[in-house]
Amino acid sequence: MTRDESALASFDFRVEGSEGEARAGRLALPHGEVHTPAFMPVGTYGAVRGLHPDEVEGAGAEIMLGNTYHLHLRPGEDTVRALGGLHRFASWTRPLLTDSGGFQVFSLAGLRTIEETGVEFTSHIDGSVRRLTPESSMEIQWALGADIAMAFDHVVPGQASWELAEAGMEQTLRWLERCKGRHQELVESEPVGQWASGPVPPVPTGTPAHRPTGAQTLWPIVQGGVHPDLRQRSLEGTLARGPWTGLAIGGLSVGEPKPVMHRVLESLAHGLPADRPRYLMGVGFPDDLVEGIARGVDLFDCVAATRNGRHGSAWTSRGRVNIRKAAHRTAGEPLDADCDCATCARFSRGYLRHLFVAEEMLGLRLVSLHNVRFLIRVAEQARQAILRGDFHRWSRSWLERYAGREDQ
Amino acid sequence: MTRDESALASFDFRVEGSEGEARAGRLALPHGEVHTPAFMPVGTYGAVRGLHPDEVEGAGAEIMLGNTYHLHLRPGEDTVRALGGLHRFASWTRPLLTDSGGFQVFSLAGLRTIEETGVEFTSHIDGSVRRLTPESSMEIQWALGADIAMAFDHVVPGQASWELAEAGMEQTLRWLERCKGRHQELVESEPVGQWASGPVPPVPTGTPAHRPTGAQTLWPIVQGGVHPDLRQRSLEGTLARGPWTGLAIGGLSVGEPKPVMHRVLESLAHGLPADRPRYLMGVGFPDDLVEGIARGVDLFDCVAATRNGRHGSAWTSRGRVNIRKAAHRTAGEPLDADCDCATCARFSRGYLRHLFVAEEMLGLRLVSLHNVRFLIRVAEQARQAILRGDFHRWSRSWLERYAGREDQ
Repeated sequence: MTRDESALASFDFRVEGSEGEARAGRLALPHGEVHTPAFMPVGTYGAVRGLHPDEVEGAGAEIMLGNTYHLHLRPGEDTVRALGGLHRFASWTRPLLTDSGGFQVFSLAGLRTIEETGVEFTSHIDGSVRRLTPESSMEIQWALGADIAMAFDHVVPGQASWELAEAGMEQTLRWLERCKGRHQELVESEPVGQWASGPVPPVPTGTPAHRPTGAQTLWPIVQGGVHPDLRQRSLEGTLARGPWTGLAIGGLSVGEPKPVMHRVLESLAHGLPADRPRYLMGVGFPDDLVEGIARGVDLFDCVAATRNGRHGSAWTSRGRVNIRKAAHRTAGEPLDADCDCATCARFSRGYLRHLFVAEEMLGLRLVSLHNVRFLIRVAEQARQAILRGDFHRWSRSWLERYAGREDQ
Repeated sequence: MTRDESALASFDFRVEGSEGEARAGRLALPHGEVHTPAFMPVGTYGAVRGLHPDEVEGAGAEIMLGNTYHLHLRPGEDTVRALGGLHRFASWTRPLLTDSGGFQVFSLAGLRTIEETGVEFTSHIDGSVRRLTPESSMEIQWALGADIAMAFDHVVPGQASWELAEAGMEQTLRWLERCKGRHQELVESEPVGQWASGPVPPVPTGTPAHRPTGAQTLWPIVQGGVHPDLRQRSLEGTLARGPWTGLAIGGLSVGEPKPVMHRVLESLAHGLPADRPRYLMGVGFPDDLVEGIARGVDLFDCVAATRNGRHGSAWTSRGRVNIRKAAHRTAGEPLDADCDCATCARFSRGYLRHLFVAEEMLGLRLVSLHNVRFLIRVAEQARQAILRGDFHRWSRSWLERYAGREDQ
């Protein structure tokens, strides 16, 4: 298998190898390349919880996610823009993707009103009433300055009826047109130029705000709940409104059983353009990545790595380890002897358990870092397996070992 | 001024330059050299709160402090020893000093009973009744394996009467003899050897415990409250029980006014052996370091750097900055434009404020790191000023600028 190592233009995607539905690719973005499949750590407030950007980069992350909903509320996109955009604000030099805020506002059950124009919601921070519309989501993401902006979508719960799922899916398509229109206006409103790159020292006060100038793409989100016919209609409607540089699959991992999620992915795989990256939103756990990659997914994001890490729950190649357990008190071995992360290279389970018992912050950090690296490495290993034509065997063996579950 | 760069034997101290009472020196310890004056960050539970050992080292710390009281309660010295000693446990390769637990148990007012044999106290963790004696403090510190162990002392409050201070001081001397006896036994109980050094990967289970073998020294603590005559008697009594490789001044910065602390230091300076390092325990803030160095102190420790950092209070060359204030919302400049720390090189005040407002852990970390580096650098700058014979002018100018207090 010969790989074409030539440079790609921004937003180009090249499939370098495949096995079954699984693909290995390269995605070019204004702030750098992403080798897929890839896991994107979530930097909710412009920081992956508990981690320094150097640690996130050191864990191999080639792209980070920021949350539009959270950053809109705190500190507000105007503040981020005044401080040079999200890259400079958070001192992150690699690619960034921002979600649209759709998932978060639709999760605010009882605190939001959905209208055709957009969603009115009550801030979970200060109780203020806010509005998010397809247009304002585009404007916020433009101000944040991510490489990839996501369309503002209507997300329904995993158990939503066909009727509810259809309504959400149709509204997502109508909103997609408005997102596309507003995004296009924003892209054209400022001359094409270069984004800030290289090291990101603090911005001296009075420096003109850094403005993203054309270097942002918009990805649509396929909805339709757990209903294959709706998913198909959503995909067709989305493609009819294209072209797109990438597509996302939303509304999964929201309460539906895993086999159902797998069936939805399988039903979409053939209809998704083969030459565009596919992003499965909000997924997942280590085995979800392997299962998703097997069904043609290229990009993933999830807060579980850091959320579990903060609670002392670590993923290992043999399942999950609860580092708080007394069994680890004098354990000299690392979390995972097969792991190459900075935590496993230096710290024993006994020390990590001690940090959690003593409520010492470093513990949360070290286990979060391990979990982030663990997910990134699963994707890296899958990529290597695909490129050498060994993905089927590798993934079965990986899943079997992981299911062995040490469960300590 | 020519400096002798030749190697020192473990526990040797060489004064390389002085100006007035201020001294610049080198202290050789089994795990490396410490250039004085120096600030020692406090790793209460075997970690400087919120910081990774690489960050502490990167901030220029040449020695770290561990708390015997806290490590005895959690995880217990047996656990630390089973995991290779405190250096290996905490993945810290440079010198370590452990305090004796005296300060902590005497701070447990109402929860402890002082007897001639030792102190019975109620654990603040689980309410269990424990005893700490001069002998057990030595045994715990031996098991932890620090380069420098501190004598178990009787600390009285800053406003203690002459009678109380005398009783505590005399008991400290009696306990010093017992500490010395037990420490000597421990040193002789195991053959002289080398401590573990170099990188510290996790210890495989079943590895024999790392045992400190002779490579630990014991430092006494001068007590006597705020009463110069008692301090003098304490010093004489301490020296009569020597020789010592270094001496500490305890029972200061415990509620007495700062000018009183300065007078005690001045009264001791001439009586302290010029060729031994002097450690002022539990001090301090940046200006306390400058004032202490001017009065002949070589080593300092204090939790204020990280405690203040966790609350968003940062030291700068122009005084204190409260990073939570709204004034910093869109401030692009670093905490301190004159600072060389990893935080100031990368992050704006606006971003740091955002992290605190959003309760994102990274904020505590970044400001704590800044404060630790700030104190270490004050000591480094003082050292350079002493070596070039400019300490008097430098310290006046430094204190004046610091007192200017931006106070934002």
